[in-house]
Amino acid sequence: MDVTEYMKSLGGNARKASRAVARASTQDKNAALLAIADAITAQRDTLKAANQRDMQRGRDNGLDAALLDRLELTDDRIDTMIEGLHQVAALPDPVGEITDLKYRPSGIQVGKMRVPLGVIGIIYESRPNVTIEAASLCLKSGNAAILRGGSEAIEANQALAVCITQGLAAAGLPAAAVQVVETTDRAAVGELITMPEYVDVIVPRGGKGLIERISRDAKVTVIKHLDGICHVYIDQFADKTKAINIAINAKTHRYGTCNTMETLLVHQAVAAEILPQLASAYADIGVELRGCEATRAILSDALVASEEDWHSEYLAPILSIKLVDDMDQAIEHINHYGSHHTDSIISENYTLARRFLTEVDSSSVMINASTRFADGFEYGLGAEIGISTDKIHARGPVGLDGLTSQKYVVLGNGEVRN
Amino acid sequence: MDVTEYMKSLGGNARKASRAVARASTQDKNAALLAIADAITAQRDTLKAANQRDMQRGRDNGLDAALLDRLELTDDRIDTMIEGLHQVAALPDPVGEITDLKYRPSGIQVGKMRVPLGVIGIIYESRPNVTIEAASLCLKSGNAAILRGGSEAIEANQALAVCITQGLAAAGLPAAAVQVVETTDRAAVGELITMPEYVDVIVPRGGKGLIERISRDAKVTVIKHLDGICHVYIDQFADKTKAINIAINAKTHRYGTCNTMETLLVHQAVAAEILPQLASAYADIGVELRGCEATRAILSDALVASEEDWHSEYLAPILSIKLVDDMDQAIEHINHYGSHHTDSIISENYTLARRFLTEVDSSSVMINASTRFADGFEYGLGAEIGISTDKIHARGPVGLDGLTSQKYVVLGNGEVRN
Repeated sequence: MDVTEYMKSLGGNARKASRAVARASTQDKNAALLAIADAITAQRDTLKAANQRDMQRGRDNGLDAALLDRLELTDDRIDTMIEGLHQVAALPDPVGEITDLKYRPSGIQVGKMRVPLGVIGIIYESRPNVTIEAASLCLKSGNAAILRGGSEAIEANQALAVCITQGLAAAGLPAAAVQVVETTDRAAVGELITMPEYVDVIVPRGGKGLIERISRDAKVTVIKHLDGICHVYIDQFADKTKAINIAINAKTHRYGTCNTMETLLVHQAVAAEILPQLASAYADIGVELRGCEATRAILSDALVASEEDWHSEYLAPILSIKLVDDMDQAIEHINHYGSHHTDSIISENYTLARRFLTEVDSSSVMINASTRFADGFEYGLGAEIGISTDKIHARGPVGLDGLTSQKYVVLGNGEVRN
Repeated sequence: MDVTEYMKSLGGNARKASRAVARASTQDKNAALLAIADAITAQRDTLKAANQRDMQRGRDNGLDAALLDRLELTDDRIDTMIEGLHQVAALPDPVGEITDLKYRPSGIQVGKMRVPLGVIGIIYESRPNVTIEAASLCLKSGNAAILRGGSEAIEANQALAVCITQGLAAAGLPAAAVQVVETTDRAAVGELITMPEYVDVIVPRGGKGLIERISRDAKVTVIKHLDGICHVYIDQFADKTKAINIAINAKTHRYGTCNTMETLLVHQAVAAEILPQLASAYADIGVELRGCEATRAILSDALVASEEDWHSEYLAPILSIKLVDDMDQAIEHINHYGSHHTDSIISENYTLARRFLTEVDSSSVMINASTRFADGFEYGLGAEIGISTDKIHARGPVGLDGLTSQKYVVLGNGEVRN
């Protein structure tokens, strides 16, 4: 197979299909989503068998346990995919929404209409459920999608592609509205990210290395975050109970997520009061603490935090702790070492909290809330294709709106320009 | 001078300054804008002398009359720059605006806060007034700017840079908030568009060739339109008076603007009635007509339109005319030959007009209004840095909002995630 030719043909088909999907009625798009869900239900055994072949090949190739876990399509995960399709069908259609329609002095009425982006390329690793998640969000937002999953999941992804094709056909939508790349050749990724004539935006999901490579080489906009080095700052005027609850939740609710706190900043004036109690709670849960010198003066059991620690996304039961003299130092630390993902201040002081909200340059900035809330569902977007730490096009959790743009509409009554 | 080193130093300075501008109060930003206006007023003679040196060099180098005209800083144009600075100062500050703040079931309140993009690179040709226009919009939207004007205008641009620096200093803002590139070396553009570590977005203003080159080579998002091939479609159900007024205005109000109509599409059922009257009006004004075969059957004086004509942005008193069998054919023509800039239908039919609005894939789509309205001022944006025909980040006229992004803000009361 000539990968360049193959990807260009997917691209051309996607571009053509994107016009039909952009025009498709809400009813047809929802019908397709529900028909995909039905096809998955009907082909549950086929899907599991395909996944078992992936799993076997993975074991033969010595994949590690974490990867095998992500690869597996359990009945629970299949149920979640089916439920997800129903949820996306139930979301309001973003396409065609007209907002801000206002009369201008010339007599024309000017507003904005939400329109699909066109063709979206999604590149992800070995979780086959992402295939359905990405397909459903692109379809609902009126975009054509080209999906490139990890080669470890190729059999399951191809089986899911069959369900998607059947669902699209049932609703009378073109098959090329969602295409799953059939080849495991890595060159396919290189092609996908360098065909601006066919692909409008790339959403990569996966490890930092993959995303860095894609961002560097892509010829179109990439909606992405590289890592989540999130902070909680316990201010001098923090409510102690809120501070402790949030610091525990932000670190220990889940270790492997991008909105998990990795560094705790504490105002030096309250550290002696709060840190011992926090440390004892972390010790009970089994979180390893690494502190700056001032922290270790209070918590003698904490390990030494190096410069490297402030840059680290542990994704593990490890927390770095730093004492700061004031909020300015906290903000400076966050803007310098953080990844512009999610950062929270715990404070009852109005002026400080307001300044933190304004001056921290992150995609989510919080007051008295756990960083774990940074998520499309928790924010009410209904779903999420990813989180962007960039500022171009989308910032923060990206839902259906983030996969659209807005064109201007002008309603006139024969007006001409003077 | 080592251009790479020089541009990287501008970039580093801009990145640093961007943090200060992002934080700057509305009052300080406005004070800077008004102080720049005062400096221009005080240095009017110096500016005109610098411009005269540019003009002399231009004449010596054989620049054509149109270019020399754009290059000239007349008293009128200086007045317009000063007025523009006052207008931008009077616009509402987009930065910090919080919208959509809503309670979620978890108890947290989630909203969006408007934030600057960071550093904006502007590349333009030989109109020195763009220096002030671009500087003022970037500054008001809280961004740092690096401005690269055409080498023909270097003396005037350097003189304007002095005014900008004085204005920034008067308001206590860093000098690097707005930097005007001092070298005329073309390599400076290549550097500016390939330093994503320092520059977040590029806005090119100029000819199609320049913009194509920049888009191809840039390593950051480019907000741009390549050309304006705008259409008016006179539908079967058009009001004849509106149709004629708009078709005349859209073509003849100004020939050189990107929102000028270049192709007129007419439903075959009304062509015989409308075209002769239109043709006579165009003839009075001196517009050359080029038609398809069916058009020429009605307008025997019209020249033959070739395939090339449907692709042409004339920017001149020339109009191509094509008859269509129905609206579908009109939409197909527009989406195929147009430049996704601005297209208008003239119709009294609700269902057809509504479909046109939805299905035409352009940054501005109009009903019964002249394409000449596609403009930041006419749309109520207060100002415009350019018009985008892309869908990523911004589409249509780009005002202050288009130079910003939105971060999520979360206001809590100690909530943790379950």
